[in-house]
Amino acid sequence: MSPINELELTRFIRRLFGGGDNGSVSLGIGDDCAAVRAQAGLETLVTCDTLCEGTHFAKPLIPPAKLGAKLVCVSVSDIAAMGGVPRYLVLAMNLTGEVDKKWIESFLRGVRKASRKFECALIGGNIAIAAKGLSFTMTAIGAVKKGRRVDRSGARPGDRIFVTGTLGDSALGLDLLLEKRKSYSAAQRKLINRHIDPTPRLKAGALLGSERIASSMIDVSDGVALDLRRLAEASGVSAAIELAGFPLSKQAGACLDANGPQVWQRILGGGEDYELLFTVRPSKLGKLAQAAGRFDTPVRRIGSITKERKPRLKIIGPGGVEPNLASEGWLHSL
Amino acid sequence: MSPINELELTRFIRRLFGGGDNGSVSLGIGDDCAAVRAQAGLETLVTCDTLCEGTHFAKPLIPPAKLGAKLVCVSVSDIAAMGGVPRYLVLAMNLTGEVDKKWIESFLRGVRKASRKFECALIGGNIAIAAKGLSFTMTAIGAVKKGRRVDRSGARPGDRIFVTGTLGDSALGLDLLLEKRKSYSAAQRKLINRHIDPTPRLKAGALLGSERIASSMIDVSDGVALDLRRLAEASGVSAAIELAGFPLSKQAGACLDANGPQVWQRILGGGEDYELLFTVRPSKLGKLAQAAGRFDTPVRRIGSITKERKPRLKIIGPGGVEPNLASEGWLHSL
Repeated sequence: MSPINELELTRFIRRLFGGGDNGSVSLGIGDDCAAVRAQAGLETLVTCDTLCEGTHFAKPLIPPAKLGAKLVCVSVSDIAAMGGVPRYLVLAMNLTGEVDKKWIESFLRGVRKASRKFECALIGGNIAIAAKGLSFTMTAIGAVKKGRRVDRSGARPGDRIFVTGTLGDSALGLDLLLEKRKSYSAAQRKLINRHIDPTPRLKAGALLGSERIASSMIDVSDGVALDLRRLAEASGVSAAIELAGFPLSKQAGACLDANGPQVWQRILGGGEDYELLFTVRPSKLGKLAQAAGRFDTPVRRIGSITKERKPRLKIIGPGGVEPNLASEGWLHSL
Repeated sequence: MSPINELELTRFIRRLFGGGDNGSVSLGIGDDCAAVRAQAGLETLVTCDTLCEGTHFAKPLIPPAKLGAKLVCVSVSDIAAMGGVPRYLVLAMNLTGEVDKKWIESFLRGVRKASRKFECALIGGNIAIAAKGLSFTMTAIGAVKKGRRVDRSGARPGDRIFVTGTLGDSALGLDLLLEKRKSYSAAQRKLINRHIDPTPRLKAGALLGSERIASSMIDVSDGVALDLRRLAEASGVSAAIELAGFPLSKQAGACLDANGPQVWQRILGGGEDYELLFTVRPSKLGKLAQAAGRFDTPVRRIGSITKERKPRLKIIGPGGVEPNLASEGWLHSL
């Protein structure tokens, strides 16, 4: 293992990310601050996520380049969930002896690949050589036109609940990864890939905001049940979702057939889907149908916002009945 | 020790920082992103710093509220060093079993106290419960008028080199702290206080930028020798500083008298001063003299930018001669 030299690493980062900006960066990596031009008529969106080794990732289970790309995805997904577009990234790395020069360069190449794909520029950051606790914190800065921002608090009774893509694949993929099998089938690799290489729904998010389609939105990072509960709580409403029409991949469907209804716990509560969960007023459903063709992913209706005296999340099982979550051992994670 | 409950902590943060914005925050803590209004005619400044336990601080040596305030200082100091004004803070916390609820609440109260003092708002962040590696990453966002930003690359031969406040106190204070004495004299406590409770030079920085006085600027975080070298390298120039006129506190002066010239190593190379190091064209010296009365701290000239074939930093000792840094064992840290 070749150890990390802070100065060398800084030079590597400047070379790797130099000139990769999107036109509005007036001062990039290398000074006390980065500087970007503010544009009138826009709101600036700011979000921040950390991946800690041992908590959010296990080094042996994810290649460094995928981890770098995933950190970008996790960050820009929050910007998509506001109806915005990501512009700038700031990366703080707490490096330890667990990683060497090769590993960290590969991680950074993953960050660059994803940042180019999502058209945002890494403009700054921090390198700390820490005694313990390998971790990466990404602050993402984005933009949204005034009046087009979608908060999580805008849902009203009668709104329909939608989600992009399919749910549960990431959690099921993680379960497979943790089994540490010698080899995986093609179907299993698809689930694993959804865990280590998620896709933020940037195009859907931006259109749901700019075309004023979504009344509220959140990204599904901690499981659709918890994130929908957060959205409902912020909006002061209740929600009901039906598992019968749930968007599942072929692989997740097969998993459900093979292992029975407890798989729903992973689908609803597993997290790291990075799909968008949003609500639409009945009057905007036609607009959604028109715009959906331009999304980067299909959308599926999974339920409705309801008005109950005490805000809660009602889950209607595949048989049309509400499962007893507590007795099934679901309550803890859902 | 009462353990940390993430949900409870989030509520505490919302209460603590709610309503404390500076008027331009359109969406604070609690959604996928925070949102702030961009203003035309301004550039946005972004910087990021991390404090790791064991590397940048030792938990027994600094009270949590002081650590929180110091993290804010470290971050906004970088914005002052660009001639800007801090506006928003984003805090990522990697929490471990090393700290309990009381500690972290005290830390956050320190963050709030400093953020109010410096008129910036905490608008978001992340809480990670990590297995190991207690650390705090602050991203600070500021603003500077177009054309008034001061980069570190603007120094030219003939410019005079200035510094705010006094240098070396923080390093000498740290040395005292590490001795873990039972009690300290008033003079010693002054040095220690400069280490645990530094003051960012926000007013001086903003005026040096807005009045177009400084041609280049950097904040002194890693020792004036290294930071001046960085400024000179970015500007493609050499620099000469004279120790005879150096701005030293009464306590640092006494330390020098008592312990001899090796104390210069701590003054020049110790770091964490968070003073501003800047250059001024000869034509702007009158303007500096006029503005200096409105600064929050005295400024002192310590040298000049020179033009030598090979960029280097020349240090002229108190006797008017260049000390042999290598033979004195200075070279490693300077």
